[in-house]
Amino acid sequence: MNASEPIGIAVIGAGYWGPNLVRNFQGSTRFRLRWLCDLDVERAHRVLGGYSTVQVTADLEEVLADPAVQAVAIATPAGTHLKVALSALRAGKHVLVEKPLAATYEEGLQLVEEADERGLTLMCDHTYCYTPAVLRIRELLHSGELGELHFLDSVRINLGLVQRDIDVLWDLAPHDLSILDFVLPPGVTPVAVAAHGADGIGAGRACVAYLTLKLSNGAIAHIHVNWLSPVKIRTAIFGGSKRTLVWDDLNPSQRLAIYDRGVDVASTDELGDEQRRDILISYRSGDMVAPALTEREALRTMVDEYARAITTKTPALTDGRSGLRVLELLQAASRSLAEGGTMITIDEGHMA
Amino acid sequence: MNASEPIGIAVIGAGYWGPNLVRNFQGSTRFRLRWLCDLDVERAHRVLGGYSTVQVTADLEEVLADPAVQAVAIATPAGTHLKVALSALRAGKHVLVEKPLAATYEEGLQLVEEADERGLTLMCDHTYCYTPAVLRIRELLHSGELGELHFLDSVRINLGLVQRDIDVLWDLAPHDLSILDFVLPPGVTPVAVAAHGADGIGAGRACVAYLTLKLSNGAIAHIHVNWLSPVKIRTAIFGGSKRTLVWDDLNPSQRLAIYDRGVDVASTDELGDEQRRDILISYRSGDMVAPALTEREALRTMVDEYARAITTKTPALTDGRSGLRVLELLQAASRSLAEGGTMITIDEGHMA
Amino acid sequence: MNASEPIGIAVIGAGYWGPNLVRNFQGSTRFRLRWLCDLDVERAHRVLGGYSTVQVTADLEEVLADPAVQAVAIATPAGTHLKVALSALRAGKHVLVEKPLAATYEEGLQLVEEADERGLTLMCDHTYCYTPAVLRIRELLHSGELGELHFLDSVRINLGLVQRDIDVLWDLAPHDLSILDFVLPPGVTPVAVAAHGADGIGAGRACVAYLTLKLSNGAIAHIHVNWLSPVKIRTAIFGGSKRTLVWDDLNPSQRLAIYDRGVDVASTDELGDEQRRDILISYRSGDMVAPALTEREALRTMVDEYARAITTKTPALTDGRSGLRVLELLQAASRSLAEGGTMITIDEGHMA
Amino acid sequence: MNASEPIGIAVIGAGYWGPNLVRNFQGSTRFRLRWLCDLDVERAHRVLGGYSTVQVTADLEEVLADPAVQAVAIATPAGTHLKVALSALRAGKHVLVEKPLAATYEEGLQLVEEADERGLTLMCDHTYCYTPAVLRIRELLHSGELGELHFLDSVRINLGLVQRDIDVLWDLAPHDLSILDFVLPPGVTPVAVAAHGADGIGAGRACVAYLTLKLSNGAIAHIHVNWLSPVKIRTAIFGGSKRTLVWDDLNPSQRLAIYDRGVDVASTDELGDEQRRDILISYRSGDMVAPALTEREALRTMVDEYARAITTKTPALTDGRSGLRVLELLQAASRSLAEGGTMITIDEGHMA
Repeated sequence: MNASEPIGIAVIGAGYWGPNLVRNFQGSTRFRLRWLCDLDVERAHRVLGGYSTVQVTADLEEVLADPAVQAVAIATPAGTHLKVALSALRAGKHVLVEKPLAATYEEGLQLVEEADERGLTLMCDHTYCYTPAVLRIRELLHSGELGELHFLDSVRINLGLVQRDIDVLWDLAPHDLSILDFVLPPGVTPVAVAAHGADGIGAGRACVAYLTLKLSNGAIAHIHVNWLSPVKIRTAIFGGSKRTLVWDDLNPSQRLAIYDRGVDVASTDELGDEQRRDILISYRSGDMVAPALTEREALRTMVDEYARAITTKTPALTDGRSGLRVLELLQAASRSLAEGGTMITIDEGHMA
Repeated sequence: MNASEPIGIAVIGAGYWGPNLVRNFQGSTRFRLRWLCDLDVERAHRVLGGYSTVQVTADLEEVLADPAVQAVAIATPAGTHLKVALSALRAGKHVLVEKPLAATYEEGLQLVEEADERGLTLMCDHTYCYTPAVLRIRELLHSGELGELHFLDSVRINLGLVQRDIDVLWDLAPHDLSILDFVLPPGVTPVAVAAHGADGIGAGRACVAYLTLKLSNGAIAHIHVNWLSPVKIRTAIFGGSKRTLVWDDLNPSQRLAIYDRGVDVASTDELGDEQRRDILISYRSGDMVAPALTEREALRTMVDEYARAITTKTPALTDGRSGLRVLELLQAASRSLAEGGTMITIDEGHMA
Repeated sequence: MNASEPIGIAVIGAGYWGPNLVRNFQGSTRFRLRWLCDLDVERAHRVLGGYSTVQVTADLEEVLADPAVQAVAIATPAGTHLKVALSALRAGKHVLVEKPLAATYEEGLQLVEEADERGLTLMCDHTYCYTPAVLRIRELLHSGELGELHFLDSVRINLGLVQRDIDVLWDLAPHDLSILDFVLPPGVTPVAVAAHGADGIGAGRACVAYLTLKLSNGAIAHIHVNWLSPVKIRTAIFGGSKRTLVWDDLNPSQRLAIYDRGVDVASTDELGDEQRRDILISYRSGDMVAPALTEREALRTMVDEYARAITTKTPALTDGRSGLRVLELLQAASRSLAEGGTMITIDEGHMA
Repeated sequence: MNASEPIGIAVIGAGYWGPNLVRNFQGSTRFRLRWLCDLDVERAHRVLGGYSTVQVTADLEEVLADPAVQAVAIATPAGTHLKVALSALRAGKHVLVEKPLAATYEEGLQLVEEADERGLTLMCDHTYCYTPAVLRIRELLHSGELGELHFLDSVRINLGLVQRDIDVLWDLAPHDLSILDFVLPPGVTPVAVAAHGADGIGAGRACVAYLTLKLSNGAIAHIHVNWLSPVKIRTAIFGGSKRTLVWDDLNPSQRLAIYDRGVDVASTDELGDEQRRDILISYRSGDMVAPALTEREALRTMVDEYARAITTKTPALTDGRSGLRVLELLQAASRSLAEGGTMITIDEGHMA
């Protein structure tokens, strides 16, 4: 494929997320949108509007048979990801899949292996990872500017649509878990997870859930997801040994705040015998810096990364394996939820 | 005692909290402050300032021997509560104790029994319960205006003094647990608790902790306490079947917000066979009301309640038993923390 | 024209605002977008994207000659409004004009008269008037729920693009003045205006400006517009005799807040001679209600209103005359600014 | 007077502000509070509480006759300042006066001259100037870190007590005007002032007022004071040529925010003839820094400054002359208000 020629793409699924993919692929010079495919052809036409030259079909086979289509973007329900993505890979198409990668870890693994064998790009649309804020958080953690991560507290709550097929954990926690996977510095990984939840309104599935993760460096990560909160909160605090970062995604004028404020503990190496019994703790009351962030739509950056991965034949930042790691954590969390909060160990071999 | 004559009171402990008690007892017409007692006499003098007629002593016995003293208020470290309070009760004085009631459940029980036997008032200074906001929350939950409680999410975090003798759980969670105990409607009680925590900075004790409580009506309560957050958050969300209440204690112009916004689930009784498979869920996008609250210092109301309990010989709203219930939960949470997050059942008989 | 048949429309101008009009006319079933016209054809193509069936031209005459075009929407620089709109009216087309209606009051008047003579719709795109918040404010003021308006304080500041041809007054104040014109109850009108401003950065025109308006009922309205503020504020307070309303357009979860809090003044009629000297003032410390608002894009509602006005041959809510009244105020404010803040009387006859 | 010996002080006036002075003089080691003087002796006793050794009297002469009293602090109504302060100065006492310094400029001038003649300290309690935030703002403006001041926008509104004898201008604007006087760099002074206002509720005096000040460097300062706002706002924006500072006094965690964000204008000296017509304007989208501020009560710092001024016989930071400059502006603003907003020139000679 000529790098300068746009990649022919088809979007599969015209539901909640599909329109966003359609808009962003149309806006990218790296792609040429060929098809919008949905079982409900009327819905697909509505998404495109009355002035579009993009083709519509209900027949996936028609799309996959089109040689002008080199890649697909799948935004169908999670339960169908395996079937649709597998068909696309087997037809030789690169595949981008809406989160979560698949309905189960095992299904996700099948997709990763199929893509590997065929040398095709498999990417997971972990959109939040491509926001300017999360890209900056990754940089701050990888560069050591925050020091070592001590704790992460993430809250993602609002009045959400109670899903028919999945609980709040599978609906919202993929965002937080994919961000965690994305920003953790090399060598730090989740080693265990526990989950508590409640139905509350008799919906038949958890509408409120709390996840606690132990990380390999001894840190704790905690995630609160909730469909029943009348107030919308999307905040995460990353407590580091040097600085602490607060991400408030709903505060556009100050999404990130880096505090040079915190608690210092004197190294016990510097202390005499007497002092070792009483660890010295002192306070820093430092400034706060809110870095300027570029305002760029995350999906646009994600679409660029998809093009880059396809063109350079290198893994995307959020490749199939990252989607797999998120599924591993979700599955362990679900097991913990079912068992009343038991701490479930994550099999490291699994995650490699 | 003549109801119109002020009650002679002594404050024991001139550390962090003592000055607040001194100020409020001095400001109340129901009490006459006779003594401020602290092992560090200089500190006690500093607290009173250079213009005071209140007596200072380092000798508790001197205070307890004074017949003009009918009641004491204890603001010494938790480890000393048993000894100091027991001496006071045995000297026939009414006792108010800074939270937590005692260092252990067993010690707390001793105090409750001693006060019962002697017919003396034993009260726990759960200050937050006397804020206009919490008094209103209690009213809203007891009257049924919020409907049945589905979930409670409480966050109490900021850069806090790392305590030398207790972890963040024992330092901060007594506030949230005493509020929970205070506002829950009759018949709803915590039945189990799990706790996760992390040290983070190598302080030798948990600096971040998460508590999950199961309530007897199936609801979930979750508490996040944290000494390491550079931002200060004191928020609680009470999700009810009719309305949801948000308490933001750091927003003086809108401490309480009651949302008539939420999720309705149709009763399956009203549904036909077909429909029963799909629970009907609909959204209410209602108004929010922020009720006007009087601005009154909580400690002043607490001091009044102490006077009322002493004078009428009836239990205070936050009597020794409420302090005991909080200790029961703290102790169970500590056990869970030590065991890595096991869910610990609360013995109902115990709590009665 | 058949009411059920869509109205053929052309958008003139593909600059800053044009794309929003294109998107909303495309999304409306009441219109069929025929042309996007811009002197820069490439820019017009970029706005439509690479998948559009809409025609592009640089030639206004070509558009006006098309019998399939019944209406136009003009989003060109203000200095060209007169020429473009006049051509369109003379070609028998209905006209929607981006704010301000024209570069001067006299030009605006020409447009209003031309449209009147020809029986064509002339509408001004005062977008903010069609937000759910402003529509509700209008309702609250017209219905008397707020009581009589005592004061209005409006702040619209942020880091704005310093315009090459107009000052901050002409750039931003049309929003506030059109809202004022839209929400004032019948019979209450501005009778005088004074303006102060400063250049600050040596841009050659006012970058900060303050307007003070006297209303016919004795109330005061004050508007602060500013291009140099690093923080973005869009707030208005409507002080009424019964209630006070606060509109914070940047707080999506609580755009409107209605306070039942305020100051009561006893009527002097009820008072004895003695008391008349001291007007009785008392405080109400009432609740606050934040009404639920539908989330609908203002431009969509504006587009619907344009269709309604054309179809029913009745004036639009923001018709040419409302645009004219805003021009009158802008022109008077500019004169005051030039004269150092003199209070300029608004000629009532003028405004009729 | 021995510098290490505390200064004998008397507080005159036990109304709204007196108790704060009593508390802070009692808390200072530099002063010894000898008397609290109020015509209402009962009120004075209530302020001191039931445990105080401080003397109470209704007789000012008794206080002034006491040789142990070297200084007084006056917190009586503004109309009495001249008489009380003059008596004190004539009795050889140093004088601190609650803002405003006096009821008129002429009265204030009398006090300044009397103190000068007698070599006594005359200080005005402009409390806000001693907050850590304002002290820092002064430093930032004096050091040039913000660059040259372009504009100042100050808002001080909430539901305030409608005063019986003064309007909102004289009640609230002294705060903003004294801060302005305090922070302006040497050489920059107000040269003219205009004021608009409204009564609104029929209180017989302005309850809402807007002040516009022209500064000698061409900058604009604008002040909004309002007794009728149900929301409380205390914000000021200082727009400088290098940085812009936002002070939000109600946000304790982020009172000051310094934005390195703004608009750059290329110097026309660097430009060719062609370019001079189009001033080059570019945007900086920089970081924001919220500096850590110490938390110290402003009144405590003010009290220290009073002691320093007395002991060193040097003018206080907010000496009588600063109080006089504030009176000059208030009087000019009142005149402008009465004349419907005329711009009133400030006589520079007057202010020297």
